Amino acid sequence: MASEFDLIARYFTRAAPAGLLGVGDDCALFPVPPGEQVATSTDLLLEGRHFFPDVDPKALGHKALAVNLSDLAAMGARPIGCVLGLALPRLDEPWLAAFAEGFHGLADAHGCPLVGGDTTRSAHDLAISVTVFGAVPRGLALRRDSARPGDDIWVSGELGAADVAYRLLDGQYPADAGLLAATRQALEWPRPQVALGLALRGIAHAAIDISDGLLQDLGHILTASRAGASLRYGHMPVAAALASLDEAPRRRAVLGGGDVYQLCFTAPASRREAVLAAAGSAGARVTHIGEIREQAGLAVLDEQGRPLADLPAGFDHFPAA
Amino acid sequence: MASEFDLIARYFTRAAPAGLLGVGDDCALFPVPPGEQVATSTDLLLEGRHFFPDVDPKALGHKALAVNLSDLAAMGARPIGCVLGLALPRLDEPWLAAFAEGFHGLADAHGCPLVGGDTTRSAHDLAISVTVFGAVPRGLALRRDSARPGDDIWVSGELGAADVAYRLLDGQYPADAGLLAATRQALEWPRPQVALGLALRGIAHAAIDISDGLLQDLGHILTASRAGASLRYGHMPVAAALASLDEAPRRRAVLGGGDVYQLCFTAPASRREAVLAAAGSAGARVTHIGEIREQAGLAVLDEQGRPLADLPAGFDHFPAA
Repeated sequence: MASEFDLIARYFTRAAPAGLLGVGDDCALFPVPPGEQVATSTDLLLEGRHFFPDVDPKALGHKALAVNLSDLAAMGARPIGCVLGLALPRLDEPWLAAFAEGFHGLADAHGCPLVGGDTTRSAHDLAISVTVFGAVPRGLALRRDSARPGDDIWVSGELGAADVAYRLLDGQYPADAGLLAATRQALEWPRPQVALGLALRGIAHAAIDISDGLLQDLGHILTASRAGASLRYGHMPVAAALASLDEAPRRRAVLGGGDVYQLCFTAPASRREAVLAAAGSAGARVTHIGEIREQAGLAVLDEQGRPLADLPAGFDHFPAA
Repeated sequence: MASEFDLIARYFTRAAPAGLLGVGDDCALFPVPPGEQVATSTDLLLEGRHFFPDVDPKALGHKALAVNLSDLAAMGARPIGCVLGLALPRLDEPWLAAFAEGFHGLADAHGCPLVGGDTTRSAHDLAISVTVFGAVPRGLALRRDSARPGDDIWVSGELGAADVAYRLLDGQYPADAGLLAATRQALEWPRPQVALGLALRGIAHAAIDISDGLLQDLGHILTASRAGASLRYGHMPVAAALASLDEAPRRRAVLGGGDVYQLCFTAPASRREAVLAAAGSAGARVTHIGEIREQAGLAVLDEQGRPLADLPAGFDHFPAA
């Protein structure tokens, strides 16, 4: 008989690292270094909404944790541990084994062990809830409300590939095996920029991770910081795979595409060398794409310095009817 | 236009208490007192599995947090804060307002503010993910693996009412408005025993909260502590509303009924006065129901000291086919 408890034990219980009490008690316990605060974030991922039902379960296990680690990265927090809630429509052991392999693989790479969980049976859909915990010294967190006029705006990695892969898999774009092969990894195996977030402590002013699209997520920084911004479209780090696309879908992918999990951050213009050195030490590519302005609003300028019209909106889970 | 962000802002964002950064950044931030560890627990509640679709949303908001606070109580941890994931099949503002009222009401009563969350649309079912954080001084957590032979076994509150209410609402028992009225509050408005958990620090050896049934949850203590137990059925604190039931359903409710959220804990026989004083200070009723034994196994004895046969099993989300 494979009971709920057996299942959890088989795939998700591991020896807790020293100092942590893991799966198997009412709560998990973990220490926090003196002078540091706990940073936490939670995400609830649903089949059909956040991932396709036939997605590789190993990639899904990776991504379920990656999207949360990306939130720690955007705060400049060091991962400590995570908890996982799984609602499964059926008992599928090979699926569970692959999911656990993907999850633990990324957890191990970031020193973020799974310390607690809850597994249950669902009536219809697969649902995955992940909450991560990290630590950040008091006063050093990279918040959304700290951008200042004159700050450079930077973005890590490349933009646009995940959006294109999603639309190909969703049937919005005609099948294109080559384009899918060139973009799919960005969608299914995002690499959270944890090392970059840590390296930017004390250098960056504000940061956010790009989950809902560059313009929408930068917009959260602008709202929280009561500032505006101008971006240079020609400076964006567009994924090379997008070269074959028409301008409209490319622009939508670069400026509005979600599921990116790169960092958008601001830093004083006087710290450009420090930003580049931090990125170098973290093995990350960063690109200077614009400036924070005192004047409200978000403009994207073309090569001639004229504002682009028809900017794409970001992703909204509850779009207006 | 009511976007996801507007919704979150309207019902779930509140001014974060001093020292906490709440909803509206990539992560929530909270401090932990020096010398204390973080205790955390997560639960994923699903419509049709953990609650009826027509449940009062205010009660549901209360219970979604209560079941997690109960895990903190069982560790002897003081609540710090919580995060909430909500997957909603539709935008129903009165429902959201009532859910938020029930959730915040219990959060306020326990000093456990909502500091972060994630709201999304689901295809079918309502899903609720709650993760709580608490703090407990190093070495004082009430763990499952610390019961010792000779310990008294105690239980807080009363047993059985939630199981009867569930079976009435589920149609397993014939409709009985009087019995439902007398048992329903235990099922829908459980009161987590946080104050009792704190008062038992340094007194109790092991503790667990009763979510899956007394025998199953005590069984987790016995497994983790490599010990056995004998209980006296005649000493159980049976809810008065169960007096009209036949013996078989009463026994099933008392020994196997889940959704109780009372504490089962062990303490040395030499600390009986201290246990009673702790319960008194916490405003909790506690009952001495048995003893931890060195010999493995879990026996429930009748008035003549004979073991009861046909003990009920606990709740299993994935019962064997």
